[in-house]
Amino acid sequence: MASEVVEAEGHLIDSQLLNGMFDTVVRHDAAFEVLEFRIGRTNDEPSFVSMRVTAPAEDVLSELLAELVGLGCSVARVEDARTIAADRDGCAPDDFYSTTNHQTFVRRGGQWLAVEHQRMDAAIVVENERPVCRKLRAIRRGDAVVCGIHGIKIVPEFQARDRLGFAFMSNEISSERRVEVGVSRIAAMMRETKHAGDRIAVVAGPVVVHTGGGSYFCELIRRGYVDVLLAGNALAVHDVEQALFGTSLGVDLETGKPIEGGHRHHMRAINTIFRAGGLRQAVEQGVLTSGVMHECIRRNVEYVLAGSIRDDGPLPDTIANLVDAQDRYTEALQGVKLVLVLSTMLHGIGVGNMLPASVRLVCVDINPAVVTKLADRGSSQTIGIVTDVGLFLRQLASAVAHD
Amino acid sequence: MASEVVEAEGHLIDSQLLNGMFDTVVRHDAAFEVLEFRIGRTNDEPSFVSMRVTAPAEDVLSELLAELVGLGCSVARVEDARTIAADRDGCAPDDFYSTTNHQTFVRRGGQWLAVEHQRMDAAIVVENERPVCRKLRAIRRGDAVVCGIHGIKIVPEFQARDRLGFAFMSNEISSERRVEVGVSRIAAMMRETKHAGDRIAVVAGPVVVHTGGGSYFCELIRRGYVDVLLAGNALAVHDVEQALFGTSLGVDLETGKPIEGGHRHHMRAINTIFRAGGLRQAVEQGVLTSGVMHECIRRNVEYVLAGSIRDDGPLPDTIANLVDAQDRYTEALQGVKLVLVLSTMLHGIGVGNMLPASVRLVCVDINPAVVTKLADRGSSQTIGIVTDVGLFLRQLASAVAHD
Amino acid sequence: MASEVVEAEGHLIDSQLLNGMFDTVVRHDAAFEVLEFRIGRTNDEPSFVSMRVTAPAEDVLSELLAELVGLGCSVARVEDARTIAADRDGCAPDDFYSTTNHQTFVRRGGQWLAVEHQRMDAAIVVENERPVCRKLRAIRRGDAVVCGIHGIKIVPEFQARDRLGFAFMSNEISSERRVEVGVSRIAAMMRETKHAGDRIAVVAGPVVVHTGGGSYFCELIRRGYVDVLLAGNALAVHDVEQALFGTSLGVDLETGKPIEGGHRHHMRAINTIFRAGGLRQAVEQGVLTSGVMHECIRRNVEYVLAGSIRDDGPLPDTIANLVDAQDRYTEALQGVKLVLVLSTMLHGIGVGNMLPASVRLVCVDINPAVVTKLADRGSSQTIGIVTDVGLFLRQLASAVAHD
Amino acid sequence: MASEVVEAEGHLIDSQLLNGMFDTVVRHDAAFEVLEFRIGRTNDEPSFVSMRVTAPAEDVLSELLAELVGLGCSVARVEDARTIAADRDGCAPDDFYSTTNHQTFVRRGGQWLAVEHQRMDAAIVVENERPVCRKLRAIRRGDAVVCGIHGIKIVPEFQARDRLGFAFMSNEISSERRVEVGVSRIAAMMRETKHAGDRIAVVAGPVVVHTGGGSYFCELIRRGYVDVLLAGNALAVHDVEQALFGTSLGVDLETGKPIEGGHRHHMRAINTIFRAGGLRQAVEQGVLTSGVMHECIRRNVEYVLAGSIRDDGPLPDTIANLVDAQDRYTEALQGVKLVLVLSTMLHGIGVGNMLPASVRLVCVDINPAVVTKLADRGSSQTIGIVTDVGLFLRQLASAVAHD
Repeated sequence: MASEVVEAEGHLIDSQLLNGMFDTVVRHDAAFEVLEFRIGRTNDEPSFVSMRVTAPAEDVLSELLAELVGLGCSVARVEDARTIAADRDGCAPDDFYSTTNHQTFVRRGGQWLAVEHQRMDAAIVVENERPVCRKLRAIRRGDAVVCGIHGIKIVPEFQARDRLGFAFMSNEISSERRVEVGVSRIAAMMRETKHAGDRIAVVAGPVVVHTGGGSYFCELIRRGYVDVLLAGNALAVHDVEQALFGTSLGVDLETGKPIEGGHRHHMRAINTIFRAGGLRQAVEQGVLTSGVMHECIRRNVEYVLAGSIRDDGPLPDTIANLVDAQDRYTEALQGVKLVLVLSTMLHGIGVGNMLPASVRLVCVDINPAVVTKLADRGSSQTIGIVTDVGLFLRQLASAVAHD
Repeated sequence: MASEVVEAEGHLIDSQLLNGMFDTVVRHDAAFEVLEFRIGRTNDEPSFVSMRVTAPAEDVLSELLAELVGLGCSVARVEDARTIAADRDGCAPDDFYSTTNHQTFVRRGGQWLAVEHQRMDAAIVVENERPVCRKLRAIRRGDAVVCGIHGIKIVPEFQARDRLGFAFMSNEISSERRVEVGVSRIAAMMRETKHAGDRIAVVAGPVVVHTGGGSYFCELIRRGYVDVLLAGNALAVHDVEQALFGTSLGVDLETGKPIEGGHRHHMRAINTIFRAGGLRQAVEQGVLTSGVMHECIRRNVEYVLAGSIRDDGPLPDTIANLVDAQDRYTEALQGVKLVLVLSTMLHGIGVGNMLPASVRLVCVDINPAVVTKLADRGSSQTIGIVTDVGLFLRQLASAVAHD
Repeated sequence: MASEVVEAEGHLIDSQLLNGMFDTVVRHDAAFEVLEFRIGRTNDEPSFVSMRVTAPAEDVLSELLAELVGLGCSVARVEDARTIAADRDGCAPDDFYSTTNHQTFVRRGGQWLAVEHQRMDAAIVVENERPVCRKLRAIRRGDAVVCGIHGIKIVPEFQARDRLGFAFMSNEISSERRVEVGVSRIAAMMRETKHAGDRIAVVAGPVVVHTGGGSYFCELIRRGYVDVLLAGNALAVHDVEQALFGTSLGVDLETGKPIEGGHRHHMRAINTIFRAGGLRQAVEQGVLTSGVMHECIRRNVEYVLAGSIRDDGPLPDTIANLVDAQDRYTEALQGVKLVLVLSTMLHGIGVGNMLPASVRLVCVDINPAVVTKLADRGSSQTIGIVTDVGLFLRQLASAVAHD
Repeated sequence: MASEVVEAEGHLIDSQLLNGMFDTVVRHDAAFEVLEFRIGRTNDEPSFVSMRVTAPAEDVLSELLAELVGLGCSVARVEDARTIAADRDGCAPDDFYSTTNHQTFVRRGGQWLAVEHQRMDAAIVVENERPVCRKLRAIRRGDAVVCGIHGIKIVPEFQARDRLGFAFMSNEISSERRVEVGVSRIAAMMRETKHAGDRIAVVAGPVVVHTGGGSYFCELIRRGYVDVLLAGNALAVHDVEQALFGTSLGVDLETGKPIEGGHRHHMRAINTIFRAGGLRQAVEQGVLTSGVMHECIRRNVEYVLAGSIRDDGPLPDTIANLVDAQDRYTEALQGVKLVLVLSTMLHGIGVGNMLPASVRLVCVDINPAVVTKLADRGSSQTIGIVTDVGLFLRQLASAVAHD
């Protein structure tokens, strides 16, 4: 038998943290005894819990405590966080602390220091007494890596029962919802974000173009609602195909008529961009005169295209190396406070991995399984909408226009 | 070894009938030998084939011929159709001919007679020398039921490679299509149908209300584009809930906020209609003053609500007996030339079973599997659209308004 | 401003009831003040909360209290429940209490009485001082119907953080789970249920037959694991088609080869059963000698077939009237403690509506949206599995065999 | 008005090519006149068509002819194919011929030469009088690139109405099919492929591990049924996580219990492999002793892991650059005659793009939309199965064991 006292403070009830903590204890065949509990008497007051957890063995306790820390508990015995020097490049010590996407604090010299560049699935390195998230591959020999669970505290982002009226809109992910309500809420959030001087990122798949959403997306760009576009090669290819030939995946977007063997058009589109030297050059040479990429380039909207195994071409603008692409995505997401993920599970998950939980995320897809997967970050900052992305963009462009 | 010569005439290539016939022969481990083939030299000319099919045994041949007749072949040896008197009510003779939804002819006294009330999965009864489709349950002892396959000929509806530009719109069912193109095509068909003096039926599930499509549906009714509404109990219940309480399935349609235990509202809605004595009475008493059912009643649009095992209530207007409901649906579909099925697999399949192949069918659902199942009638008269039905109705109402 | 004090006791944290209560208050733009809170110190101890809720107006408070009662709160001012005599058949008074599926108590003469025949979406009628759930349509003039919210208390079924190890198996509904784990858990539950002398019901759609699960289902029946089969007409039709012709929906189950116009077989199957006079007669006459229905009849397993608008036939055994079918389903579910819903949303929802929350429900479907819809009863008694139902039944039959 | 005479020979009816050709003509508002048609009198005989197509304008005719060539027509006026020298690296001349995945012939010096390394979306370069498929990016200045449509002929792979009994198994993609039939057919194909001395490739997503299919996959490897594994980083990471910790995505595969914040395990798994220096080194050092990757390494099964934007790590074995990854995939697919794609749209599409139509492709996924997208190569060489991949692998491992 082994036991430890842990504490947590915050919106423990409304964020369901307390329930999660109890569940976690029981799932490990361990037991808890609540030593002290103070409930927030109103919606604004935080709660506090102190409890002793007892596990059948030391290793189970240690695993259990690691999970509890991830939920916002900290060990009551106050100690500084332990660091161990990395023994080689690209590797952390065996019991390195693996981060969540919630704001994390590390105790050093009796002080709780906020971790910088918060993201999930990273290690924490202490540099010049400042703790920073770092991907495993970026660890260098000698880096002081935070290990174990002592002196670590996270502050889950769930607090404050949806002051934004965000989560209440949609308590479950379902195609049986009125999308118009979601659209006007998102339009309002986009306006708020801009007024606050923050940035908006759109992560978009080629389905945006196939479903005829391209021109509405352009309208959002023209109105200044897109600060950065994160996508793959296919979005750009089909956008260019549409700009040059009026087809997308070989289907005529005006008449709906398919083109037999319709791959010819998109290969010609790629060849045209190759010949110009890239998308920007194609715009400058007057070769590419419409579409999403054209609009981004004309309006100086930053775009990053990340390559993947299924790419045709890829275009000269597409970043072929995933490590470079991740770094470029991460950089482009600085200062972004609202992200719209439109019909792309691949890039949506990629972006979700990079974001702190405080960034609002809106996921739109016609497949409920994709929305569930993307939107399920356990935070009231996330919303999922199951709908047709082409019609969604039409509504959204119209909603921001009636500003 | 057993063999027979069969013939077929029509748009054998473009309707893929010839391919289907050959496939069917090979699948039975039988062989075909083309005796004569005349191809239509242009898009308008029919083709003709005569072929000998040879099967390893008589019973295989007989099964094979039955399938070939269903595809439009007829046995070359011209004989009258054989009828056998039914020996009891509700039963056909063992080898009764089971109909398809394509126009069928029966040979009697050397004449080919068109079958009346064509529908699938029926028997054919000859009454006063007129062949008529009849459901098994409606057969009465002594009825002359067409049996076997001789003297039967069907004319598949596929002809004339899409003179309506209908099928070309969408060669495959996919959520990755521009719905706006489909909307304007459907709006055009609705106008054509009305101008021709034909009727339009809408088959609608409760998702129409949940997704906020109710008010747009009302607009279609007000503009005269709905002659008959076929639905279940749930559409009416949620429409009334929305009219009385502003919620649908316990979600507020204006704010998107859910109601805990939100079933209370729909039970109150049911109770209110019970108290009034029915939907029509509720409208007359001024209790029900908006919504789809209200609009149907005010505009004298015929509606038939068919009950099912999951119904709450059911409302007094809901037909509890499925046999009655099927009969009422069938009757209401007389003169209908265009059917829109909106988010209801159950009622959509029910209606599909009743229609001759010549009636155009449009299926709209956010689940591609539902659209595939409903739209797959093997005819260019059918179109499937994978999209959000609430936004679809908004576009459609706007498209018919800009007439 | 209007306010009231409410109380609740039970597993308020682990069942997320307390969070739900707070959410509900805030969603109504109301406020709560916790007067007293005692937390369960260990996993087994209940918690207790007393709080004052304050709403901006009387009608909002009243709506809010109605929702809180549905979550397990009761008004602190102890009063007897109020009843009003129904003024006509089939109608409840306007503010009748609409039930949830959780065990409910009604206070009469200072005593808390348990409501009988608990189910959701019913009214409560007090007869001979015993409160009973009654469907609206079954209310008769003069019945004493419980109204308002005073003197009503429900005990949500969530208690006791999954002593059965049921919910922990699957925290979210996803196709990305190992089904084998679920199968062995379900097999164990089936054994437990039988050993306890309780009954098991299976609700099955025709996909069970199409996917080749029929023979494995028969094995479950033979081993005594099915006490009642609830289904529709289509399951029986396709089961008979498979027994007589070896095909299902016109696809040969051994070779996978389709039959062109494959509806012929199922129409012949229906005709055969019509001729025999029904399924039981067909078994007795030696016409039907295999399949699920044959096995049920031979083993005296009760079955109820509920009709719907899309039915062919229907078979003589199918109950055409939904009210009769609901009554027969409800009756057959008496004493049932475990329900398996296999690939049928229609009948699954129908059954779900009839069950108290204490009955365990397992939903299996390849479509995650169906599983979410069926399994989402807010109780740890429910489990959803996204998988292929044919292969699932194969595994399950094998798991109970290795008993 | 502009016209041209085209011809085609082959299984024009059963492969629906003739219908496709006619459709294509009509879709361009052009007309056809059949000059000569000889039908194959039996299933084995080819058909022949010669027709004049007339379009309203030269450019329409030219676009139309390009599509007809893609369907297997060739221009009747026999000319050699035209080549133009590429004017710069990575670019083809504007009217380069973009390939399909069907076997293509190019006419040079009056001879029809077979194109080598057939794949779709490539250009054809003539080197030393041998025509070869080449990706646009691999074209070098001065290469002789085939342009236009004269002297080009493709031989669609559809021929010979399914001599393999492959396509008949499944005429449509549906979850309502008996998977067991598909499994035994695939097991038979795997045996045939091995007996013929050809190679089998498996393209697998991480869902294989999440659903518990890993151990069955290992069995296929041990029995020699996997020659090459094509996957992404995630398959390897979750396979290693499962090998080291018994969890997958943080869910315990034996008990189904989730791990809160379960990302920790997979990050530890990555760190462990980093430390070892790679997967092979981890096996050699005795760190990795079970799982799919271990089995591949032990059995010398070639594996290629292609990176993507959502990767954690990535592992040292993962190829970060998509161009390198595509080249390695392509190379690994040499000699492969059967490909199983298991629950991965991304890598499945990537592989599909690389394969000639003559390679058999089996796609297994629980999402019908993925199967449709992957399996829709318009060839009888492709099969799609909608099922649970974990249970599918269990059945398949058992089917090949009973050899």
